[in-house]
Amino acid sequence: MSRFFSSRYAELTPYVPGEQPIDQPYIKLNTNESPFPPPPGVAEALAAEADRLRLYSDTECTQLRSILSERLGVSPNELLMTNGSDEILNFAFMAFCDEQTPAIFPDITYGFYPVFAAINRIPFREIPLTADWRIDLEAFCPAEGTVFLANPNAPTGIALGRDEIERVIRANPDHVVVVDEAYVDFGAESCVPLIHQYDNLLVTQTFSKSRSMAGARLGFGVGCESLIRDLNTVKFSTNPYNVNRATQAAGIACLREDDYNMENCRRIQETRSWTAEELRKLGFRILDSWTNFLFAEHAAIDGETLYRKLKERGILIRHFSLPRIRNYNRITIGTREQMEALIRATGDILEETR
Amino acid sequence: MSRFFSSRYAELTPYVPGEQPIDQPYIKLNTNESPFPPPPGVAEALAAEADRLRLYSDTECTQLRSILSERLGVSPNELLMTNGSDEILNFAFMAFCDEQTPAIFPDITYGFYPVFAAINRIPFREIPLTADWRIDLEAFCPAEGTVFLANPNAPTGIALGRDEIERVIRANPDHVVVVDEAYVDFGAESCVPLIHQYDNLLVTQTFSKSRSMAGARLGFGVGCESLIRDLNTVKFSTNPYNVNRATQAAGIACLREDDYNMENCRRIQETRSWTAEELRKLGFRILDSWTNFLFAEHAAIDGETLYRKLKERGILIRHFSLPRIRNYNRITIGTREQMEALIRATGDILEETR
Repeated sequence: MSRFFSSRYAELTPYVPGEQPIDQPYIKLNTNESPFPPPPGVAEALAAEADRLRLYSDTECTQLRSILSERLGVSPNELLMTNGSDEILNFAFMAFCDEQTPAIFPDITYGFYPVFAAINRIPFREIPLTADWRIDLEAFCPAEGTVFLANPNAPTGIALGRDEIERVIRANPDHVVVVDEAYVDFGAESCVPLIHQYDNLLVTQTFSKSRSMAGARLGFGVGCESLIRDLNTVKFSTNPYNVNRATQAAGIACLREDDYNMENCRRIQETRSWTAEELRKLGFRILDSWTNFLFAEHAAIDGETLYRKLKERGILIRHFSLPRIRNYNRITIGTREQMEALIRATGDILEETR
Repeated sequence: MSRFFSSRYAELTPYVPGEQPIDQPYIKLNTNESPFPPPPGVAEALAAEADRLRLYSDTECTQLRSILSERLGVSPNELLMTNGSDEILNFAFMAFCDEQTPAIFPDITYGFYPVFAAINRIPFREIPLTADWRIDLEAFCPAEGTVFLANPNAPTGIALGRDEIERVIRANPDHVVVVDEAYVDFGAESCVPLIHQYDNLLVTQTFSKSRSMAGARLGFGVGCESLIRDLNTVKFSTNPYNVNRATQAAGIACLREDDYNMENCRRIQETRSWTAEELRKLGFRILDSWTNFLFAEHAAIDGETLYRKLKERGILIRHFSLPRIRNYNRITIGTREQMEALIRATGDILEETR
């Protein structure tokens, strides 16, 4: 820390993203990326945009919002595009929380929520997941603050039904409920259709997982017009050109072939079932997953050892050091071939440990 | 404003970017974009990156920082890449200002500074430019806060010498001095070489103007390692993947042909001299410019009228409503042909007004 750093942030511990090894031949099952490339049209769209990079991007993302809003069944004014869904989440912390309005979220969830609260100097309260790793709905009804629910939740992978989320929305009419649906396209129910009924609902999603564009940084928020207007006030006061031209062009091309993306999601769900079954045969306890990852523990090997031994064998998975989940690992679903390699390597490791 | 919007921002007035008309055949001289496309290698680099978009971007921008730091004569650890230079400026407001440390900048300068202060709830003080539109150096020595100096300044276009900026840096040893060099490549002196002497100097630059990549959103900050570390703490607490893969690839390709960019800057300076002379012949008062724009007023026509009449003729320039500069317009330097069209149209308008 320099002698100039504001004391506002003296206690701040930044978020630690998953490892992104450069130019190493790992089987990468650690950051929930898609094993499939984006739709074929994306390359052409990017190349075609090169000369236009000299011009600023459209701050309104007009064309992209038009196509996406149609797919979602909402109006363009109920939609805001951001530089990844991290940005829309940060905007929501800024817009809808403050000293008087704390942020409320589960104790085990997306690890960035406490960091967003800290950087914005917002008090927050964590509500423990139940013993079977489910969100404690009762405790959120009401929550006395702005609610952040990842649905499906990460890193557990467990999803609530839309009716369950709706209960939380109804129980908190005077607070915004943010439903972070980063993983919703892998089999869970989206709350987007509810935005026309509730003025306190904001749904966030991303192109990073189901649409194979983690590296393009494209996320969005869906909510009633007045919530979106507030979030735009924050956007236009921090970084109006947050979504660049290349990303807008890639996003449009990606949505034009959205059937390809949704077929990939289906394949990932298939591979997920197969992988879960194989891991169970090896003695793992696996939580039910509605995402593109599995959350798994094994009585005979602790989470960190398994993570380390797999890394030695060229396979990266994600281990978290939070005490409550330190025996677990989060394993991204890759291609069938990658998961076969994981199963083989894991079998070998368990064999050695015996 | 929704009923949920934090009272923190009740008074906030967002930044208003220049007009970005979509699919209209304007001669666009209003947002200081380059009239030249990015180097030819950028299209290929973008297309080649498409399949890799499925993977998260390198949060460290390792390769891009390596090439850029070499060009700048600094170490990679003295460099931070951001989503446009707006983002690094916002990070600097966050990191180096607070209730106890106000932001200090000229009254006429980049219009985003007061907005960055407001969104971060930072008190600020504006120091009036002198009567001849120069930064009042005396008033900044010392300034009793974190100093933000655009050099060259916008929208005046006037530059301070490196020795003048150095005086401000030396006079404020206990405060950070941020030198915003968005326009430095059009003939002014950069303060980058001073970062090794002063631990309180942060220089920010952008690929938007001199490198023809406004639409790619790529900016950066240069300073001593401890300042860069603070700014990274802020980055990793808001949006670690702020610079996406397409932009990193485009930035690398762009720097590989940097001679092309610098030749464009030279051409723009030539066209700037020609345009200034022609406007002076038409009776305009033009401030000396070290940028890719001119700041101009005319005794016979007010700024807003000229802006409006040029727009009717298909030429966009930038008018600001701030009282002190409302008679002026900011005119981006485009190609020689574009500037000839501007001169013709302006001549006609003055003829009519007579």
